[in-house]
Amino acid sequence: MDISKLIANTKLDTSSPYYLQIASLIKAKIDDGSLTVGERLPAERELALLFQVSRTTAINAYRHLEKDGYISIKNGSGTYVSDRYILGNRSNYEMPWPQLLKPYMQSSMSSLMSELMVSNVLEDKISLDAGMPDPNFYPVHTFSKLYLDNLSALDPKDFGHIPIHGYEPLRNRITQMLALEGIRCHADEVVILSGSQQGLYLTARVLIEPGDYVIIQEPTYLGAIQVFQSLGARVLSLPQREHFPLEILEDYLARYRPKLMYCIPTFQNPNGAIIKAGERKQLIQLSARYRLAILEDDPYSSIYYEDIPPMSLKSLDDYGGVIYLSTFSKTLMPGLRLGYMVAHPSLINRIILEKQYVDLHSNNISQWLLDLFIKEGHLGEHLTKIRGIYKNRRDVMADALNLSFKSKLSFHIPQGGFYIWCRINESLSSKKLLQEALKTGVSFIPGEAFYAAPGEDREFRLCFSQHDEKVISEGINRLEKAMEKLKKKPFSIPKREIKPMI
Amino acid sequence: MDISKLIANTKLDTSSPYYLQIASLIKAKIDDGSLTVGERLPAERELALLFQVSRTTAINAYRHLEKDGYISIKNGSGTYVSDRYILGNRSNYEMPWPQLLKPYMQSSMSSLMSELMVSNVLEDKISLDAGMPDPNFYPVHTFSKLYLDNLSALDPKDFGHIPIHGYEPLRNRITQMLALEGIRCHADEVVILSGSQQGLYLTARVLIEPGDYVIIQEPTYLGAIQVFQSLGARVLSLPQREHFPLEILEDYLARYRPKLMYCIPTFQNPNGAIIKAGERKQLIQLSARYRLAILEDDPYSSIYYEDIPPMSLKSLDDYGGVIYLSTFSKTLMPGLRLGYMVAHPSLINRIILEKQYVDLHSNNISQWLLDLFIKEGHLGEHLTKIRGIYKNRRDVMADALNLSFKSKLSFHIPQGGFYIWCRINESLSSKKLLQEALKTGVSFIPGEAFYAAPGEDREFRLCFSQHDEKVISEGINRLEKAMEKLKKKPFSIPKREIKPMI
Repeated sequence: MDISKLIANTKLDTSSPYYLQIASLIKAKIDDGSLTVGERLPAERELALLFQVSRTTAINAYRHLEKDGYISIKNGSGTYVSDRYILGNRSNYEMPWPQLLKPYMQSSMSSLMSELMVSNVLEDKISLDAGMPDPNFYPVHTFSKLYLDNLSALDPKDFGHIPIHGYEPLRNRITQMLALEGIRCHADEVVILSGSQQGLYLTARVLIEPGDYVIIQEPTYLGAIQVFQSLGARVLSLPQREHFPLEILEDYLARYRPKLMYCIPTFQNPNGAIIKAGERKQLIQLSARYRLAILEDDPYSSIYYEDIPPMSLKSLDDYGGVIYLSTFSKTLMPGLRLGYMVAHPSLINRIILEKQYVDLHSNNISQWLLDLFIKEGHLGEHLTKIRGIYKNRRDVMADALNLSFKSKLSFHIPQGGFYIWCRINESLSSKKLLQEALKTGVSFIPGEAFYAAPGEDREFRLCFSQHDEKVISEGINRLEKAMEKLKKKPFSIPKREIKPMI
Repeated sequence: MDISKLIANTKLDTSSPYYLQIASLIKAKIDDGSLTVGERLPAERELALLFQVSRTTAINAYRHLEKDGYISIKNGSGTYVSDRYILGNRSNYEMPWPQLLKPYMQSSMSSLMSELMVSNVLEDKISLDAGMPDPNFYPVHTFSKLYLDNLSALDPKDFGHIPIHGYEPLRNRITQMLALEGIRCHADEVVILSGSQQGLYLTARVLIEPGDYVIIQEPTYLGAIQVFQSLGARVLSLPQREHFPLEILEDYLARYRPKLMYCIPTFQNPNGAIIKAGERKQLIQLSARYRLAILEDDPYSSIYYEDIPPMSLKSLDDYGGVIYLSTFSKTLMPGLRLGYMVAHPSLINRIILEKQYVDLHSNNISQWLLDLFIKEGHLGEHLTKIRGIYKNRRDVMADALNLSFKSKLSFHIPQGGFYIWCRINESLSSKKLLQEALKTGVSFIPGEAFYAAPGEDREFRLCFSQHDEKVISEGINRLEKAMEKLKKKPFSIPKREIKPMI
């Protein structure tokens, strides 16, 4: 609004200096919203005329307002009402956002992980943390070629809204692909997801109410634990054993009546464990008896380095209780943001309703390209290629660990997936090791990140997929240096006393 | 498991026919999971040998099992344990999915909309329902050219995981774009979303608890009402008036302390209404006083046909309470699945945590291409082009309505957006009109879909963006025929008595 109208009937008095009175008046008009952010104010000369004061008084009024953050004076361009909110100054009214937000269940790892991210200072740091494929092998060029070759056959409608379930040809393609893996399903039982994380979220959203029990295998994928906890679930952990702990599971089933078990049966993240074929059958029989829903997360089973892993739980599912989840983020590239879920139609129909709220449907371009990619046989080729590459990297990392650490670490060589799960044989903390490691230029994920409740802190996860052999060796080298440094530090038992806060 | 082991010690008795005993035995082994779906059973000859019965008995046993859906006999390839679940036969155990799902808040429109979708039988039906741009003008070829021209400069890492906030160059690009619209923000206050629907969902997820009040302008976007109701919100409606009903809003604010107002200030879906510039300032002042969070949904403001619409609420926001939401689905194409949100950092940081659970981050390929598209100036060009096209279609639809319906319908000519909102001047139901219209080959959305609580059923929404002038004229023609037919039907007052269900 024009300032001259705002001050039409204003008279200055002698109670305080004129420049302060003018400043107060303008402040009030900014605070009440009559003058808004970005609005241009009169030039000093005009302001002086408006209030019939000297130009010096006008200049002082503006300087005072600028000091308080109400306006900004841009030489040569004019004086403007400042975005006080951005500059840190506040209007009389300000939204109390933190008080308005719903309570948030924060996992104890979240802060550690953020610290870890911020600590990434060394320029040549070697990341053995994130579980991602090597970007050098993302099949970007094949996707580009498919784009070019098929563009003319494209129906513009494919770039409009498509069904929530996903792009139909891709759903059919996945159904065919799964049939070869022993999973027989209709395309209607398949939903394309914006990454498999979305399947975790949606499944939890439609099933979990606060206080419900969910079973996980410990250690397991952090993102799953977080989703369950954020929805108020109580998480029961199955410990890792040589044999799948069916008796503990049965005890949990009888005692707590859990709604869901989350499970990575093949090349578990982080420890590479596999549930054996016989145990899978027993697990399904037990789950069927108790009508336990199983969320089978299967991102790694096609990235095997030795024998072909056992058939999925879904392929054995004869009671309709297994929800099968997979992704193309580990096999192709995370940026596709595509995964899929296969489950009983009753569940799928409800998942669809929830997905509609979340994003209507997943990205069309990715779905169209992925369908072409699978159709032309590139997926099989690509898998063969990366299995060779990653197997080699696994072996190099395992050799380097044996050579550098000898008996200081224990680990199993995983038969697939991206990770070597290590246990420190001495009394050293993996979180403290990480602090030293970041200084020597290598990172990994401390074991606590994979547990619902923190335990002893002597495990950690190394990822071997992201870097070539030379970098992996150098990374393990740096890790060993970090451990040597840590051992030389005076050992201090952390204080366990927690004093009342009064 | 090998069936010969399963029946090792089994003896048949004379209590019932052998073939039934054999069938029961196999059934039991299928039911308890010893024999699993897809497993191959012995050939009839072998089965006969195993049980020491005649081949006819073996054949009869298999026929009996097949009839019950337990096995499938494929001529020439063998006999298999059937996927009974798919065939409709059930094992002893079956997941009671419908009982396990969380209660679902269903809007009364959902079933009508599904019916509508199913009713799409006529092959040449003209859709005046969905609010989408015309696929013929999706800028697919520009996107393809950008892909080709920039492929070599692409860093494979751009196809890996990116920050939850979104692809950084795109966030910066949007920040610059918004500055021209008077919205000054840092890139950290911007989140790229998988469509603006996701912004609605995430905002509601972090703010709304069951029983919270949310204000909407009625009529409004169905997807918003559904999200709020699904989270247990109580929805308060502001009626549509010539002037924005500030006094009703203030009454609601004082009386119910609502958490949030959802608002489409410019070219509101479905009725094209605009909140005037002066009213926007008053709305912001009032909202600031009550610390009311405003979710400003702005998909249509750049699709104007007359004057440039007033500045957004966000550009006036001096108390940090406005959450700005927009999308590229209406201006470019829905299949990009990209929208964005601008809000106070406290809210954005929390939205990010929630988005991580939902999909980690939005699709990279779309974000990369969209950034290039805007950078090279295509967005401005494209908007100019579609404004011309859609303006013409709006005029054609308005003329056709005037010509066909004369005084039978009332409507305003919208100054932007995709919709003409009609009111039937006679006592006819828009839902019944739709039933007739589907028979004459045209569809629209009945007005009730845009209300939180159903009212009188005499409004409906027509979308003029999807079809060319000729098709629009024909669509209106068919609509008029439908109304004529409806009027000839015997008028029946729907029974309002609701009997107790005993």
